[in-house]
Amino acid sequence: MGEYTKGRTFLGRLPKGGDLLQELTKVVRENNIETGVFMLIGAVEKAKFGYYLQDEREFFFKEIDEHLEIVSCKGNISLLNGEPFVHAHIIVSDENGNTYGGHLSEETTIFAAEYFIQELIGEKLERTFDKKTGLSLWSM
Amino acid sequence: MGEYTKGRTFLGRLPKGGDLLQELTKVVRENNIETGVFMLIGAVEKAKFGYYLQDEREFFFKEIDEHLEIVSCKGNISLLNGEPFVHAHIIVSDENGNTYGGHLSEETTIFAAEYFIQELIGEKLERTFDKKTGLSLWSM
Amino acid sequence: MGEYTKGRTFLGRLPKGGDLLQELTKVVRENNIETGVFMLIGAVEKAKFGYYLQDEREFFFKEIDEHLEIVSCKGNISLLNGEPFVHAHIIVSDENGNTYGGHLSEETTIFAAEYFIQELIGEKLERTFDKKTGLSLWSM
Repeated sequence: MGEYTKGRTFLGRLPKGGDLLQELTKVVRENNIETGVFMLIGAVEKAKFGYYLQDEREFFFKEIDEHLEIVSCKGNISLLNGEPFVHAHIIVSDENGNTYGGHLSEETTIFAAEYFIQELIGEKLERTFDKKTGLSLWSM
Repeated sequence: MGEYTKGRTFLGRLPKGGDLLQELTKVVRENNIETGVFMLIGAVEKAKFGYYLQDEREFFFKEIDEHLEIVSCKGNISLLNGEPFVHAHIIVSDENGNTYGGHLSEETTIFAAEYFIQELIGEKLERTFDKKTGLSLWSM
Repeated sequence: MGEYTKGRTFLGRLPKGGDLLQELTKVVRENNIETGVFMLIGAVEKAKFGYYLQDEREFFFKEIDEHLEIVSCKGNISLLNGEPFVHAHIIVSDENGNTYGGHLSEETTIFAAEYFIQELIGEKLERTFDKKTGLSLWSM
């Protein structure tokens, strides 16, 4: 566990037609946000997200090629290979109100997206390979 | 994108039987919170939420006339027509643990609701009509 | 409603194989966090969560004995019987991207979990029995 102090706070929206994960990552990198948390709501033109196969140690991806609400998207920002990295989980809903979700992947296309990002200041928070899970986790 | 500083922070609960979106809006307006973010958990006696038809440019609403958990509710506060406006997305769950969600609408009735609101101080954040989506989005 | 100021801010991860609610509660108690909010993403080896039967006034619990993503977990920290108490709602997703959720219960086993906790400083926030709902709610 690490203790942090508040850095900058941002509200903004992402461009229609852009890639949700790439655009979020761009905001984070252009503003040199190395550590933080965020949340986002909006809608997408289509979604792609992953499920981690804990035994096989690989992600299985699902795509939904439909217009969807982003009912929840949130996560954190830390360093992977020295670069700011966005770890996001997303939940989307369809016309019937049914919801689907997972680990946000590229190829999720923004219709509208409003984000809140809270930068945190403190010790560098780096992801390194974790043998127990096969994931890149915080080394703390 | 805009940069903000922290304003006031509130924790509170909303009255049983009240309308979730109206009660949240009331808290926001009575405290003159013009910009901010919030999150909320609790339960409802029934729910109503919307799905935006991106081509038809109108909301389609779904009602669930059941007791439900609020497993996620979050969003932001900004100005619409000069008044503080709450934009919230909600996810509810039923007795089987199945989840449903969308854009929070009026006619969602509170059973219990615990909120966290973070006011943000900075440039006025106003919603104006966005031609590309047909929605009222932040003009930044 | 109560107004709070910001206390300490923590980012951390929870140990694989641990009980999600117990480990979160341990972090909170070991750091004497009496009031606050948190959010968490990750994955679990299995999940258990509750649905409140509003008429019968008891929780009905559902268990999913599967590997699942934690697509959303969030809530608040306040005092119950004088001790810091974590109130969390969780949403998980399976291999098909289907989501399930409710009131986080013990017997949810961590695979990986990354949390953000924001301590809040102010008046003591205590849960007491609420006759209208049968729940322990904030007495404000």
